[in-house]
Amino acid sequence: MSNRHTFPILVLTLFSVAACASNGGTTSDPLPSWNDGGAKAAIVDMVSRVTAEGSADFVRPSERIATFDNDGTLWSEQPLYFQAIYVFDRIRELAPKHPEWKEQEPFASVIRGDAKSALAGGEKALLEMVMATHTGLTAAEFSISVENWLDGARHPKSGKPFTSMVFQPMLELIDYLRQNDFKIFIVSGGGIDFVRVFSEDVYGIPPERVVGSSLEAKYEVRDGTPVIVKIPEIDLINDKEGKPVGIHRYIGRRPVIAVGNSDGDYAMLQYTTSGSGARLGLIVRHTDAEREWAYDRDSHIGRLDRGLDDADKNGWIIIDMKSDWKRIYPFENN
Amino acid sequence: MSNRHTFPILVLTLFSVAACASNGGTTSDPLPSWNDGGAKAAIVDMVSRVTAEGSADFVRPSERIATFDNDGTLWSEQPLYFQAIYVFDRIRELAPKHPEWKEQEPFASVIRGDAKSALAGGEKALLEMVMATHTGLTAAEFSISVENWLDGARHPKSGKPFTSMVFQPMLELIDYLRQNDFKIFIVSGGGIDFVRVFSEDVYGIPPERVVGSSLEAKYEVRDGTPVIVKIPEIDLINDKEGKPVGIHRYIGRRPVIAVGNSDGDYAMLQYTTSGSGARLGLIVRHTDAEREWAYDRDSHIGRLDRGLDDADKNGWIIIDMKSDWKRIYPFENN
Repeated sequence: MSNRHTFPILVLTLFSVAACASNGGTTSDPLPSWNDGGAKAAIVDMVSRVTAEGSADFVRPSERIATFDNDGTLWSEQPLYFQAIYVFDRIRELAPKHPEWKEQEPFASVIRGDAKSALAGGEKALLEMVMATHTGLTAAEFSISVENWLDGARHPKSGKPFTSMVFQPMLELIDYLRQNDFKIFIVSGGGIDFVRVFSEDVYGIPPERVVGSSLEAKYEVRDGTPVIVKIPEIDLINDKEGKPVGIHRYIGRRPVIAVGNSDGDYAMLQYTTSGSGARLGLIVRHTDAEREWAYDRDSHIGRLDRGLDDADKNGWIIIDMKSDWKRIYPFENN
Repeated sequence: MSNRHTFPILVLTLFSVAACASNGGTTSDPLPSWNDGGAKAAIVDMVSRVTAEGSADFVRPSERIATFDNDGTLWSEQPLYFQAIYVFDRIRELAPKHPEWKEQEPFASVIRGDAKSALAGGEKALLEMVMATHTGLTAAEFSISVENWLDGARHPKSGKPFTSMVFQPMLELIDYLRQNDFKIFIVSGGGIDFVRVFSEDVYGIPPERVVGSSLEAKYEVRDGTPVIVKIPEIDLINDKEGKPVGIHRYIGRRPVIAVGNSDGDYAMLQYTTSGSGARLGLIVRHTDAEREWAYDRDSHIGRLDRGLDDADKNGWIIIDMKSDWKRIYPFENN
């Protein structure tokens, strides 16, 4: 990875240092980009309770599991999932070798530049395109392809690298939970091998703490070198009811905190907050058309409908991006 | 879990404390149950090199991955894999409800007490018996069943709880690697949900750092309660060439150190030690018929044949149980 991808963490670190210094070394606000009250108050209250020894809500550090969705929760997902933009770029790169794609959906839509039609089949259509473009690649070759793309690609609206379009308040929340001995996992509908390429540099979350959709893989010795090869069969669709399955498979424990933004996270929040003891479900609501995007019930990407209906009933906290967050991205002036 | 299962860790802790005290607080031998030289020297040399900043072999802490097989590597596996004994006990418990099993293999062999025939099909036969005996159980119900069994069952030869038949030198090795900022994973041919029940209490390895063979699972809301239900389809056979696949799936990085004892670990060691930079492959050879068991090339359980042939060529270190280990089990007198 280039140094560029360490940018958000560096920014966070610099801010933490600055905050400490200005307080003369006393405990500073761990969530400076969050407005007081609302979601912030619920988070701080919850963390205080589960970490207070002797409290009825105390949770042992080894059981302090927090799971975060990625697209729309840790970084933006408009105008398309960033991984979809990567896959589309790959399809256009490979198209000269695949003349048949001009007549074949969803490839034909991608080549025509009609992203909406190409993604009409949702996560599954995306995974099928991933399969078609990566058959026979080794896991290492795939990682390099993603690294190279992240280095060069720019977001169509902001002109920034995709890895800098992460949410500053979420970097702070991850850091705050980590300082309170939480183990932080990404539980993404996106591809596990895709997210693992940047998760450690961008969020400080190592590959083994990333859960995501996956293809099958096999082990072989290729020209004398042992490698993992991606094969074009779906292993896990880590979305909707697949998220608790992915959590069980990879983590083996019910989370204490789950954070999402769409109905694809409903089952994860339901599974999490139905556990015994103190639990917290958080939903990021995209309400800020000026600084980010505003969308929920009618959006094709990141649709949030049932989750809004049931949040109160289930005790889930809505994070209203416009009113809860002082800043969105690390690159903004404060 | 009952307190009984914390026994090995407690013993290890007490020994560490005693060792420190006798040295007046200076750095004590981190591997007191290992004889000097041989495997111990190779381990200490490797750890020193990868942790020395500025060394050509330095490995960043986040990439210090060590993977351990379980059966025959961290605990004994004779006269049968301990999980097989659990499954056989379950089959005998459920047999009155399944009169058809008397005519049906491998169940008929289990009911007759012929373990060898029942296990002729290897890990896969074992997984099939797991499936037959656990269909429709929730993950939580399965865990309770294993916990209860571990509490009451005793090893047929030693008369000890199975969780006390772990190898004291391996508890020390895990602790030593952890102190050197390694992340320790179990990568077992046994069932992931089985090993996760006791891995944290017995080895200090939390569930999310256990990789193993697995059944498919689904998420459902059962009588209003969200649960994970085990379903009778094989997901991953985490043995032989399946081990590097499991490592890729769960960890996403090539290990720096891999420890096994049978040809089921060959691919894991090959994948590990073919990586660039310093790597270490260790094979426990069961050579001590008096204190544990002696078996290798001709054994049905834990067969070690190709691994012995190729160890020198591949630079793998053989741990000779009889000569390398001062003690085997935590409960032995020193």
